Amino acid sequence: MPTDTFVPIPALPLEDGYELWLRYRPLASAAAQALRDAARQVWAPGPAHASQQVALAELARGVHGLCGARLTMGDGSGPGTLLLACGADWPAALRQSPQAAALRAQLATLGDEGYLIAPLQLQGRPVTLLTAQRPIGLLYAVHAWLKAVQLGGASADVTLASSPAVRLRMLNHWDNLDRTVERGYAGQSIWDWWKLPHIVHARYDDYGRACASLGINAVSLNNVNAKAEVLSAPWLAKAAALADVLRPYGIRVWLSVRFSTPIELDGLPTADPLNPQVQVWWARKADEIYALIPDFGGFLVKANSEGQPGPRDYDRNHAEGANVFAQALAPHGGVVFWRAFVYSEKNPRDRHTQAYSDFQPLDGQFADNVIVQVKNGAIDFQPREPFHPLFGAMPRTSMALELMVTKEYMGFSTHMAHLGLQYEELLRTPTGHSGQPDQPGVPSGDPGLTVAQLLVRAPRPGGLTAIAGVANVGVDRNWCGSHFDQANWYAFGRLAWDPQASSDTIAAEWARLTFGVDAADAARIVALMRTSREAVVNYMAPLGLHHQMATGHHHGPGPWISDLARPEWNPVYYHRADAQGIGFDRTASGSNALAQYADGVAARWSDPASTPPELLLWFHHMPWDHTMRDGRTLWEALVDHYDLGVAQVAELIAGWQDLAGAIDAHRHADVAAHLAQQLREALWWRDACVAYFQSISGLPLPAGSPAPAHDLAHYQGLRFLHAPGCGG
Amino acid sequence: MPTDTFVPIPALPLEDGYELWLRYRPLASAAAQALRDAARQVWAPGPAHASQQVALAELARGVHGLCGARLTMGDGSGPGTLLLACGADWPAALRQSPQAAALRAQLATLGDEGYLIAPLQLQGRPVTLLTAQRPIGLLYAVHAWLKAVQLGGASADVTLASSPAVRLRMLNHWDNLDRTVERGYAGQSIWDWWKLPHIVHARYDDYGRACASLGINAVSLNNVNAKAEVLSAPWLAKAAALADVLRPYGIRVWLSVRFSTPIELDGLPTADPLNPQVQVWWARKADEIYALIPDFGGFLVKANSEGQPGPRDYDRNHAEGANVFAQALAPHGGVVFWRAFVYSEKNPRDRHTQAYSDFQPLDGQFADNVIVQVKNGAIDFQPREPFHPLFGAMPRTSMALELMVTKEYMGFSTHMAHLGLQYEELLRTPTGHSGQPDQPGVPSGDPGLTVAQLLVRAPRPGGLTAIAGVANVGVDRNWCGSHFDQANWYAFGRLAWDPQASSDTIAAEWARLTFGVDAADAARIVALMRTSREAVVNYMAPLGLHHQMATGHHHGPGPWISDLARPEWNPVYYHRADAQGIGFDRTASGSNALAQYADGVAARWSDPASTPPELLLWFHHMPWDHTMRDGRTLWEALVDHYDLGVAQVAELIAGWQDLAGAIDAHRHADVAAHLAQQLREALWWRDACVAYFQSISGLPLPAGSPAPAHDLAHYQGLRFLHAPGCGG
Repeated sequence: MPTDTFVPIPALPLEDGYELWLRYRPLASAAAQALRDAARQVWAPGPAHASQQVALAELARGVHGLCGARLTMGDGSGPGTLLLACGADWPAALRQSPQAAALRAQLATLGDEGYLIAPLQLQGRPVTLLTAQRPIGLLYAVHAWLKAVQLGGASADVTLASSPAVRLRMLNHWDNLDRTVERGYAGQSIWDWWKLPHIVHARYDDYGRACASLGINAVSLNNVNAKAEVLSAPWLAKAAALADVLRPYGIRVWLSVRFSTPIELDGLPTADPLNPQVQVWWARKADEIYALIPDFGGFLVKANSEGQPGPRDYDRNHAEGANVFAQALAPHGGVVFWRAFVYSEKNPRDRHTQAYSDFQPLDGQFADNVIVQVKNGAIDFQPREPFHPLFGAMPRTSMALELMVTKEYMGFSTHMAHLGLQYEELLRTPTGHSGQPDQPGVPSGDPGLTVAQLLVRAPRPGGLTAIAGVANVGVDRNWCGSHFDQANWYAFGRLAWDPQASSDTIAAEWARLTFGVDAADAARIVALMRTSREAVVNYMAPLGLHHQMATGHHHGPGPWISDLARPEWNPVYYHRADAQGIGFDRTASGSNALAQYADGVAARWSDPASTPPELLLWFHHMPWDHTMRDGRTLWEALVDHYDLGVAQVAELIAGWQDLAGAIDAHRHADVAAHLAQQLREALWWRDACVAYFQSISGLPLPAGSPAPAHDLAHYQGLRFLHAPGCGG
Repeated sequence: MPTDTFVPIPALPLEDGYELWLRYRPLASAAAQALRDAARQVWAPGPAHASQQVALAELARGVHGLCGARLTMGDGSGPGTLLLACGADWPAALRQSPQAAALRAQLATLGDEGYLIAPLQLQGRPVTLLTAQRPIGLLYAVHAWLKAVQLGGASADVTLASSPAVRLRMLNHWDNLDRTVERGYAGQSIWDWWKLPHIVHARYDDYGRACASLGINAVSLNNVNAKAEVLSAPWLAKAAALADVLRPYGIRVWLSVRFSTPIELDGLPTADPLNPQVQVWWARKADEIYALIPDFGGFLVKANSEGQPGPRDYDRNHAEGANVFAQALAPHGGVVFWRAFVYSEKNPRDRHTQAYSDFQPLDGQFADNVIVQVKNGAIDFQPREPFHPLFGAMPRTSMALELMVTKEYMGFSTHMAHLGLQYEELLRTPTGHSGQPDQPGVPSGDPGLTVAQLLVRAPRPGGLTAIAGVANVGVDRNWCGSHFDQANWYAFGRLAWDPQASSDTIAAEWARLTFGVDAADAARIVALMRTSREAVVNYMAPLGLHHQMATGHHHGPGPWISDLARPEWNPVYYHRADAQGIGFDRTASGSNALAQYADGVAARWSDPASTPPELLLWFHHMPWDHTMRDGRTLWEALVDHYDLGVAQVAELIAGWQDLAGAIDAHRHADVAAHLAQQLREALWWRDACVAYFQSISGLPLPAGSPAPAHDLAHYQGLRFLHAPGCGG
């Protein structure tokens, strides 16, 4: 060996992803010096509040990381002051300053959670004001300021004002009480139920920090397939301990509850929502919870869906069911999230239509503190779905959008699939509805409100608006099972704060904060993220295909599956391929699910010619030889999409390889290993689906498209034991 | 707030336990300077070998951490040389030195895994020699040298020679293929089966490093309650990937296998070990495995125990079963670990006696590459058990000791319970056996060989000796679920290398390396660790009581349980308390389990007067008013032990509080939270057991002993859902 060569030291993998987008690595020297000058002391007048304390701690951590300086507590008498104060606590120097009136007027427009950051001169010295109406706004301001410093660098000149467009920005944990996570691909639940309430892990604080940095202010702790015992005294104590940790971060806690809990926990003879004994039970349970958790958020309820009990077991409708919970919570200010993801084993109609049929007629019948929570689409978080027909169709009902952050149908934590684009696509889709209860229709040619525009409107007294994401967080060191899955948590949180924001802008800031890359490299990463989403659609479910995955664990392809007990569990139910063609006819000649959409949308999507190609087979059964807009036949286009998906993963691998010098070795290698696995699985999806559909169409592959590596029987014979995410 | 006060920065919890005892924090300045002088370069002649490479990396990491210097590769021509070389690769300067002959002679005595560290003068310069016969010894030497530097500080003068007393030093992971861990209390399995074989986490290397630092050289990857599919091609590929990672750390991989695998995996009509088709099947399976893993260790088998299939299903004995596996592995050098933990649902005899009855008559019938693996005691890892009567009773059979590192019966990861003392107590117990097949008896008054002395003897050709520990490792950031549980992994590994070593010495070195404390504080920590073990015995199962835990999850007390299907599952089977007295009569007037021990031991333990008080109720049913050696009645002594256990936990809390200044805040707080929980649960054990036994004895509590907090019905009514460790 050569002499005088350093023996490589295998460093502790500090860049293991644990720090997420809150890494605070040193700035370049000029920016660091500017920060040192701007942030020598923090002036925090007013009574101490827990949120202000965590804001101060974050500020100190951030400044120290970014420029090495240690913030001192000051009173504004020295240089480099950050003034961190609620409006009510402004010091005299600010109250008496010329800018005070304008700042106060602006602050008044920003609500309970907004914040304002402005450079000022106070007593002849430059001061950076971070202010808000309430302490939680100070924490949001600190995160915004630290982000701006990292992305822009001009510490002293940051001017920002922001407030959330949606009131409740919620993560839904599908975490079971045995610490498995349904559809979780990042290890066990971060909630260590067994050791709670007395042993409280430091990680809960870091979870709170991460959520607060995005403005997430609500967390439902447990799986919507809920167990009754979550409302027993031992579990309420555990939930209370978590609520105590999360409170300073502005996060309120919800619990998912089982409709039949009064029967299972206390032996009541019924859970009929109109039974007075049941109503008293829920009211007393609410009292018990609020005695432990004074700011308890409320209940999230999955009822009469996939085997869960619900009001229809007693011939009551969903509004009658939800309102009992609402009545119990109302005295305490609690809110019910009532899920509209329902389909019945007894209803033979297109599953696509069932939620609408059950819920739409109830518009106006839900209590003011009920939010109906609707998944993005009418099936179930597929790689691409058209928007759910309930959006805009219940203008007298508070409605929350439920997005999936975890990737049940998009490659678990193994595949890179940027969901920010999926969210944005949905949010920007016009629904054809006006959002006005009295004038629901829109003039011909008016696209109506987008999903985002509907979401930010509050139709009921009390002004509830909400958006929920099914969390992808677990105990894996990098929180999400893979580094790029962190971006989906980030994108969800940022879009929940501002549903009109740009997914690409969000992705770029995530990439810069997370990997420490410059704007040019961030743009390259964003390009990969853009590609990743469409790649997954292409190799899994192109042209509007959906629900093509294997049974149960939902890993890998299973388009041939036709033998499950309920028709709508089978992929063949959804693709309906036969010798003539493929696709689900949801026009008037088929299930007529399209009739549930507003007229303009229904009209456009009823005609294959005006249906976007990416949704063609969602709404239409088309002949294999149908000519697509670009002149290919449907069969050729279908196979081309599968091929393209695989090619796009190869692009991701090459693009990521090009970034090798810009990313720390540990994370670069980890992402590369995941991409290599994604390529294997993309090929598997492509080969299995092509082999299967070719067996139906009987058509030759387009020129240049390779034959699948194995015959169809091979893919049909594969078995996958112990897939993650099936626990509980 | 005061001005000029630094805002506290909540540091990333670097001291989160992930680094275990391999932290390498900076030494005091004089010691650091000495290390810089002694370790400027490393001279590593000879061909590169994977184990030498990881040894170099560890050396560089350690030196850099301890003194800030970066090691360079050198050729001995400069000052401060560490010469790292196998005996065959010694450079000429060493081969020709005056010390060469003596060093080589010493090295020859140290075997394949031993190492030698010595200060030398070569060509007029001081050199530290780290040498071994084989590359793995170099890695062990590096760990030993880094440890010595940290504990002693005189870097240039370290002189050490060591070799393991036991050939196979193995961890048994009871890790299921769905990533749950049976009796694991540190989160999911570290083996991320789903992402293997292609995605290989960096943590596997850190696991290998930790094991190698203790000399652990064998790992069985999966639960002894094995699934057939672990031997299917996809899982073998995963095992091979792990074997590849662990190989440089000197670790060979075993798999736990299900006896009936040929039936389940390939549809054979039988798993009868004497069926030629079955024998061929196992031989071919072995060939398949060795093609993937050339140094595969072999199989670990739990057969005819707790519902597992085995040779007795075909009227074959355990030797006939084990030998088929041995025959399949023998051409490849593989080894079968065949567990003696058997008891039958059809055998009404004292469970204590069944393993001996099944195995002892087979002495001499097992193949040379079979090791019979025997738990420490005849029941099941109880807080205190007498040694297993099989130790010494099969002098013609290779026998491994199986210890539990995970704490199924000692408070999971919540209670501090130092197992090093338990291991030492067992290892130092004389068995009354000679270890000689031809002269099994010992003269009257001769205590015979200790368990440790038996373990290091190899009765069969091939010289196999072994010790196994059921691992307590999981994905929890601190690996073991709590900081002090790391000490049990450490103690197991160190005692496996040297079963005669002192538990206290090992505990002190663990405390210093792990917490960075000085010798005086380490002694205080060791005192707490000593107390912790006896505390758990006292509040759970004093005076020889055993198997008093609740059903299934084994969490908390259940001495009243009497209604389980099999008698030996019930705690009442073991304590046999009635109005007259308490304890299990295993003398000739009872189950006569004592007849399975050597004469001297049996005679001593047959008489209550000469039975150690801590084992009294294990072997004797005694009247409540029996007078103990110290004059108390048995009833008084029993209650006093429960009270003492609680008081000892209070002592732990106080003692740990006194160490607040010496331990980093993060770990100190975490341990304190666990100890507070331990106190709650110790009180629960004490109160529940006292309430129950008082209901049987009808006697008043001794003066000063408080009444239980609740009545017996309260404790009997407690239910614990979702306890960890029950997966699979």
